[in-house]
Amino acid sequence: MTSPPNDPRDLVVLTLCGSLREGSFNRALLGAARELAPEGLTLEAGTDLARLPFYNPDVDGEDPPAVATEFRSALRRVDGLIIATPEYNFGVPAVVKNAIDWGSRPVKDPPITGLPTLLLGASGGASGTMRGQLSLRQSLVFTATPVLPRPGFYLTFAAKKFEDGRLHDEPTRELLGTTLKVFGEWIRAGCPVGRDGF
Amino acid sequence: MTSPPNDPRDLVVLTLCGSLREGSFNRALLGAARELAPEGLTLEAGTDLARLPFYNPDVDGEDPPAVATEFRSALRRVDGLIIATPEYNFGVPAVVKNAIDWGSRPVKDPPITGLPTLLLGASGGASGTMRGQLSLRQSLVFTATPVLPRPGFYLTFAAKKFEDGRLHDEPTRELLGTTLKVFGEWIRAGCPVGRDGF
Repeated sequence: MTSPPNDPRDLVVLTLCGSLREGSFNRALLGAARELAPEGLTLEAGTDLARLPFYNPDVDGEDPPAVATEFRSALRRVDGLIIATPEYNFGVPAVVKNAIDWGSRPVKDPPITGLPTLLLGASGGASGTMRGQLSLRQSLVFTATPVLPRPGFYLTFAAKKFEDGRLHDEPTRELLGTTLKVFGEWIRAGCPVGRDGF
Repeated sequence: MTSPPNDPRDLVVLTLCGSLREGSFNRALLGAARELAPEGLTLEAGTDLARLPFYNPDVDGEDPPAVATEFRSALRRVDGLIIATPEYNFGVPAVVKNAIDWGSRPVKDPPITGLPTLLLGASGGASGTMRGQLSLRQSLVFTATPVLPRPGFYLTFAAKKFEDGRLHDEPTRELLGTTLKVFGEWIRAGCPVGRDGF
């Protein structure tokens, strides 16, 4: 995290999509987030997670894969991270865990440590990716990555709320806008947990 | 699971390694398991998990990738599964989650559902992969995959217990042999949980 608290300049936040599906609701959700982000919060599309190879300590030495270096540099450059991901089997898709694992190295100065993070998720059914997000939060405890405590964002029954890749459900648009606003304020406030209204 | 309870024939169990590292302790642990498996329990090396692409519903239709079909066929053919994996960031490496996700489809008849499974893990430090295994157990609850309740197998301080890729620590060898024996008996008994001494 490079922005000090109360930094008046624009915050830049990297977005990662946990689904590789072209018609993914989570991809569409990130589209809506770009649209609804408040002034002062710029969302930038991060590395396509399918491009990162599976983490292998043997190739992560002096000369790691170029895409991993690109990914880590992006994490170091930005003020925050948004991960929008489906839930697979009570967890997150492998692409998301893999990104966390690349971001958690090198051990001496992991780019994901201290990086303010917002979790978003959309599901076709009633779960809203709650369990997947919980599993992800567990990993982000170990990496000492601050995750916005609340509001939680769990989009349920996505097929009813999107049409042609556009989020049209008004209450959900409102919650997304509020969540992004709170995320920006939280970053500027230094990521407090359970204090200052967060 | 194709073997009825008390099947007198040999059980064949697929092994998967969660680390891609050549000198991986978990790979060496599977080597020791092959050596220490009791009579009637044959361990067979499963798909190299780095060969499975990241799960993508768009490519998992009528004609999934050949390696995914090969992996699923192997899961359907065997009587059990052993996963030996390190812990990464309180979870499992992406290759392991990815394998679970491929194995959990197609939804109508997932090859991993009902497949008796044993979790093993080795770590350089004191955790013994406990948290990674717990996260994996959560996913395997959703897939309705029976996981051996006990004994738990958490190999700590691996560097002291292996030399040149061989497990030489006698108490650990003994526990591994016992665990494999119990796993075979548990499969033959129909995978009871909290009954019949399991």
